Amino acid sequence: MIVEIISTGTELLLGHIVNTNTPFLSQQLNRLGFDVLYHSTVGDNKKRMKQVLSTALQRANIIITSGGLGPTQGDITKEVTAELLDLPLFLDGDSAKNIKMFFDKRQLAMPENNLRQAMMPVGAIIIKNECGTAPGVIIEQNSNIIIHLPGPPRELEWMFEYAVVPYLNKRFALQGIIISKILHTYGIGESSLEDKIKDFIISQSNPTIALLAGKDGVIVRLTAKSDTTVNAEHLIAGLEKQLRPRIADYIWGLDNDTIEANIGKILTQKQLTIALAESCTGGLVTSRITDISGSSNYLMGSIICYTNRIKTDFIGVPSQIIMDHGAVSHQTALLLATNIRQKFTATIGMGITGIAGPNGATPTKPVGTVFIAIDGPLGIQCKKYTFNGQRTDIKYRISQAALHMLRQYTLSL
Amino acid sequence: MIVEIISTGTELLLGHIVNTNTPFLSQQLNRLGFDVLYHSTVGDNKKRMKQVLSTALQRANIIITSGGLGPTQGDITKEVTAELLDLPLFLDGDSAKNIKMFFDKRQLAMPENNLRQAMMPVGAIIIKNECGTAPGVIIEQNSNIIIHLPGPPRELEWMFEYAVVPYLNKRFALQGIIISKILHTYGIGESSLEDKIKDFIISQSNPTIALLAGKDGVIVRLTAKSDTTVNAEHLIAGLEKQLRPRIADYIWGLDNDTIEANIGKILTQKQLTIALAESCTGGLVTSRITDISGSSNYLMGSIICYTNRIKTDFIGVPSQIIMDHGAVSHQTALLLATNIRQKFTATIGMGITGIAGPNGATPTKPVGTVFIAIDGPLGIQCKKYTFNGQRTDIKYRISQAALHMLRQYTLSL
Repeated sequence: MIVEIISTGTELLLGHIVNTNTPFLSQQLNRLGFDVLYHSTVGDNKKRMKQVLSTALQRANIIITSGGLGPTQGDITKEVTAELLDLPLFLDGDSAKNIKMFFDKRQLAMPENNLRQAMMPVGAIIIKNECGTAPGVIIEQNSNIIIHLPGPPRELEWMFEYAVVPYLNKRFALQGIIISKILHTYGIGESSLEDKIKDFIISQSNPTIALLAGKDGVIVRLTAKSDTTVNAEHLIAGLEKQLRPRIADYIWGLDNDTIEANIGKILTQKQLTIALAESCTGGLVTSRITDISGSSNYLMGSIICYTNRIKTDFIGVPSQIIMDHGAVSHQTALLLATNIRQKFTATIGMGITGIAGPNGATPTKPVGTVFIAIDGPLGIQCKKYTFNGQRTDIKYRISQAALHMLRQYTLSL
Repeated sequence: MIVEIISTGTELLLGHIVNTNTPFLSQQLNRLGFDVLYHSTVGDNKKRMKQVLSTALQRANIIITSGGLGPTQGDITKEVTAELLDLPLFLDGDSAKNIKMFFDKRQLAMPENNLRQAMMPVGAIIIKNECGTAPGVIIEQNSNIIIHLPGPPRELEWMFEYAVVPYLNKRFALQGIIISKILHTYGIGESSLEDKIKDFIISQSNPTIALLAGKDGVIVRLTAKSDTTVNAEHLIAGLEKQLRPRIADYIWGLDNDTIEANIGKILTQKQLTIALAESCTGGLVTSRITDISGSSNYLMGSIICYTNRIKTDFIGVPSQIIMDHGAVSHQTALLLATNIRQKFTATIGMGITGIAGPNGATPTKPVGTVFIAIDGPLGIQCKKYTFNGQRTDIKYRISQAALHMLRQYTLSL
């Protein structure tokens, strides 16, 4: 069953709002086993909306629209469909009553134009709106199904879940189930990752493999289609078992995992504590660690040592070291890690010093140079990285590198 | 000039990512005076992508695609266009060289499949990618223009701004000019703001006034259309002069201003320095301050005092105070501000202590309660706020409140 999702509304074409209805509907429909193959957006214009609907009727079995069911003259979705399919509109008594009740409950007078929302194409299945005034509409004609949903996300999501899903389940009892599993990687680029598993990517049709480069690393998405959830999961597990040995070094999480949450789990499980001395990241790493509820159980605290004086007077990095090697150096990073660990009596200390840019580069240390050190029960280690990008990109990439280093270190403990 | 924006990528059809490229392109193109009338999305499938492109060629003058320029087998946008328009592809030497350099700079070996990105349709205008490896492409054929941009937002936005806009400006010298000016507000809701300037919103048609609630406060956007930039700016200046007196207390910046940058300017100008003691925000406020290049001139450093022991032993908040009043209290916030100021010898000290949630609430202090204190040459002040939302939302809202408090304080200095 091929699905097209059509979003209507001039505000979308102006770019004034981000469309979240389409990803929501796409996710839900894919999960139910439908093939969403097209998304379209068109403004509140009769002629163009009719064209877009016509195209969709030719290439999709199910068309779901969002928006254009409101009370104003600009809300034309139902009229356009009715004209296109040659269905007369009539005033639906029940819908009119519900709309009136919506206003009565709020002790408001119903504006006359709200009755437009009760005008329905003959033969349509009408969906009551529990969160607003615009009813939804399902029209079956020949081999096509058109479903009109309101634009406000809360109303659309509610209506989809409580009325459209049950309808589709009943109407297409035999749809398969589609399930995805995500493997998060770090430390490898998209094309190198593809090289490692290219034979699978080419030969696999169910499950399929997709690579996607995001700001937190490349993700590998395995998607399987089957008759039941158990069978789809089984297909994914089989493929994952074959893929894993090739890329195990890079995988750090699954599905909705975040690196901050993963670290939190490890530190909690192993009863470890941490303290940080951050220079160039300005507190970003600590802030990310504290995005996790319960982080007060393992984070002692941090010092953001943005000036050399704080590094020397409060974290005890001798000024001679800074003079000899620079504030951005192996030596300084190591002392930051060791001293903050001791000072804040944490199991693990981390020191970060680098050049976020755009100023501050030296001939041997370009913008993006950073030294990250960890001290703990396993001993001390320090890595040098060079990152590219704008200042805030560099800060973020350093924080990623620091969190992944921390994960590796604590895993070995 | 009618524009259609086509997003490509199966991940969009699966609903795994929200499409932010399309609203970005729509906004920019509308601002330049183009009519964006259609958005479409299609997966990485040759046949269907060809159909969608064919439809677009019939109804739009300019087609802008995003995505599908990467190095993998799934990246097919250029091939599809070349086939559809019957243009052979050739290996562009310059593009190949740039891609190679991209890897060399990072001291990485270039995977062979990255050369796919240098394959170009004959006769195309090639756009160099300064932020990644995929070059962009502009193809003029008959009355149509097809522009292929990469999918990663940073690359797409950069390329649009620095290559596509100049191209369109030159190619369509006669478009009208649309200019917007943004007034940033803080501390007032969307409907209260609307109430204050409703008469203008209703009566104005050029410039128009739009209110938009974002995570950094409500913005007021004034948009004027005219034959020249000067005339459009003149229209906006006239309206702004009338609006300002009504909402001056809430306006803190213009256009691309950020609160972090504004504070940086004030601190630099007035030669002030700052130090922070952050508890519940976990370093977020300091990290935001350090997003600004040059912040090392005014930020001394911070202590993230996530445990009571750090508050007492390192910032000198007497444990009796914490026992009597709680770590989340007026008293603690004031001492954090005063002591960090003194300890780090800064002009201004800031203390932040609160409950980010979801745990840690008490009967008198619900989740979202926070005390923010500032100490400096004007004396000491402390404000209590209560914010709603998820943990990370609350952290962000506290950081906003803290930065705006800091702005107010330093402005009066």
